[in-house]
Amino acid sequence: MVKNITVVGAGSWGTALAQVLCDNKNQVMLYDLNADIVKDVNENHRNARFFEEVELPSSLRATTDLKEALKEAEFILLSVPTKVIRDVLKTINTQLTHKVVIINASKGIEPGTHKRVSEIVMEEINADYLEAFVALTGPSHAEEVIQRSLTTVTCAATVVDRANEVQKMFTNDYFRVYRVDDLIGVEIGGSIKNVIALAAGILAGLGYGDNPKAALITRGLVEIKRLGVAVGANEETFSGLSGLGDLIVTCTSVHSRNWQAGYKIGNGSNLQEALDSMTMVVEGVRTCQATYEMAQALNIEMPIVETVYEVIFNKLDPREAINQLMSREMKPEFY
Amino acid sequence: MVKNITVVGAGSWGTALAQVLCDNKNQVMLYDLNADIVKDVNENHRNARFFEEVELPSSLRATTDLKEALKEAEFILLSVPTKVIRDVLKTINTQLTHKVVIINASKGIEPGTHKRVSEIVMEEINADYLEAFVALTGPSHAEEVIQRSLTTVTCAATVVDRANEVQKMFTNDYFRVYRVDDLIGVEIGGSIKNVIALAAGILAGLGYGDNPKAALITRGLVEIKRLGVAVGANEETFSGLSGLGDLIVTCTSVHSRNWQAGYKIGNGSNLQEALDSMTMVVEGVRTCQATYEMAQALNIEMPIVETVYEVIFNKLDPREAINQLMSREMKPEFY
Repeated sequence: MVKNITVVGAGSWGTALAQVLCDNKNQVMLYDLNADIVKDVNENHRNARFFEEVELPSSLRATTDLKEALKEAEFILLSVPTKVIRDVLKTINTQLTHKVVIINASKGIEPGTHKRVSEIVMEEINADYLEAFVALTGPSHAEEVIQRSLTTVTCAATVVDRANEVQKMFTNDYFRVYRVDDLIGVEIGGSIKNVIALAAGILAGLGYGDNPKAALITRGLVEIKRLGVAVGANEETFSGLSGLGDLIVTCTSVHSRNWQAGYKIGNGSNLQEALDSMTMVVEGVRTCQATYEMAQALNIEMPIVETVYEVIFNKLDPREAINQLMSREMKPEFY
Repeated sequence: MVKNITVVGAGSWGTALAQVLCDNKNQVMLYDLNADIVKDVNENHRNARFFEEVELPSSLRATTDLKEALKEAEFILLSVPTKVIRDVLKTINTQLTHKVVIINASKGIEPGTHKRVSEIVMEEINADYLEAFVALTGPSHAEEVIQRSLTTVTCAATVVDRANEVQKMFTNDYFRVYRVDDLIGVEIGGSIKNVIALAAGILAGLGYGDNPKAALITRGLVEIKRLGVAVGANEETFSGLSGLGDLIVTCTSVHSRNWQAGYKIGNGSNLQEALDSMTMVVEGVRTCQATYEMAQALNIEMPIVETVYEVIFNKLDPREAINQLMSREMKPEFY
């Protein structure tokens, strides 16, 4: 059955997901503030800012008018940087006149409040209009999805029936969505992996090889699990696509912007230079702050996250930081 | 304290480990049947067959004379292809006149018998001469270790004190060894990861990207765990360096010979061509057979291992095989 979906945010991931939904014969509207992108989509069937070579489905429409975009939407797919997500939701809330399912494809935790996106949505959207929240997450670089290259992800929801619906809406030959019954776990895994990817990038930028990178990813998953379980996630979720799977792809793929930012830091750029040089948002920096705060507040040992925090926010020398980390914290394999 | 160690097998891994032991001021003898390599080590301080550019420590000596090599050895470090390990051990056994600790750095399971290397050692070496067995395993490409690039591995032993000794003997600034109290787990993890790496290579050779690779590694670890636990390993071992860590490095590093062999198969070579084109041994092929047999005998679901087996031994078309695998077996995330 055809669904009516509005994708909020015409970045690389929002655009790739919009294409998946168009491929599945849904009615899709892409909303973005950027008039150039909207025009490019409508007139040229392209989003050249992110995918220069790709021709988008002709059924995909775009708009800068949020009211228009939301008018018939049954589903709102959020794909905006998490630092603006609260403001975007406030604006959406003023425009809603009917019930919607909100699907979130952005990954991050809010510094200060330590809220996951599902919690921010529930705070900002009038409960009368929020039918369900669904998180869509997993190992899925937009650069491959836009090429219709095989990708498997997971979804978790506040209402199980809605997760089923979202699963069916997205799944096709090349894009497969599996359900996980642990919203907290998939949100935590999807967010904190970006911090570990920054660490993996720093390590590579300093000239370290694949051996310690594998060790770092291994220990990184232990940290993510530790925090996740402390805030109510199921441990086994982190062994799945939204945990380990997403962590691996983010730490090892050339497409990973968090890894790239880390690489630049390790290679001698300062943080601002590293961020300035990237077209796309580096979520890991902000989530690093939030995760560091959570680890402190909950008294959880997260040496990799702490190290990234010290490098990024307290200008600790990356080489010294990584050396300390590898000598101190790779040690306790299990005892 | 200086230890006397004989490294059996002057391949890339044996040579790299010999260098680590020399760097730590141990007395190290490298044994190999290949007289050219032995001469190269003794006369040029090189093993040009594997490391063209590397100057080896001048303290490293080599020999083709096994009796000579074993005369003063307190430790024997095995680094030979697992398909010859039983024969090599038989020969060593005839030459032993004193107690030794055998350290194994080779990764594989024997088809037919389903024995791990520790079991083969205990079968082939006279118990009066075998003081202990120690497995050394983890994410550690020889190409990085020979460059003295930071590497972390694990060891597990039949006698804990000996694991401590081996840990100290190897550990230095760039090479760190951590103990794990689960010999079965580290042997199973180290062996079967090569089969998953073949699968990851096949996937890449067929043109698939990083998204499904991450999914494959994630599901691969589930299979390894399943078999490991069934034969007596601790589940948590597989979340450590010898399990997840080694799996990641083997599936994602350009140095991985198993990945490379898989890539060639996916890319259209047949198995023999793929193997012929590699200087180094592809352990995953043999371990695939053993693992497949074990999965059948123990009635354990290992769809990735089965798929690799069908491609390699029954000429199943790789594209068809991977398509079947990804559509059928990526499904059950947790239910």
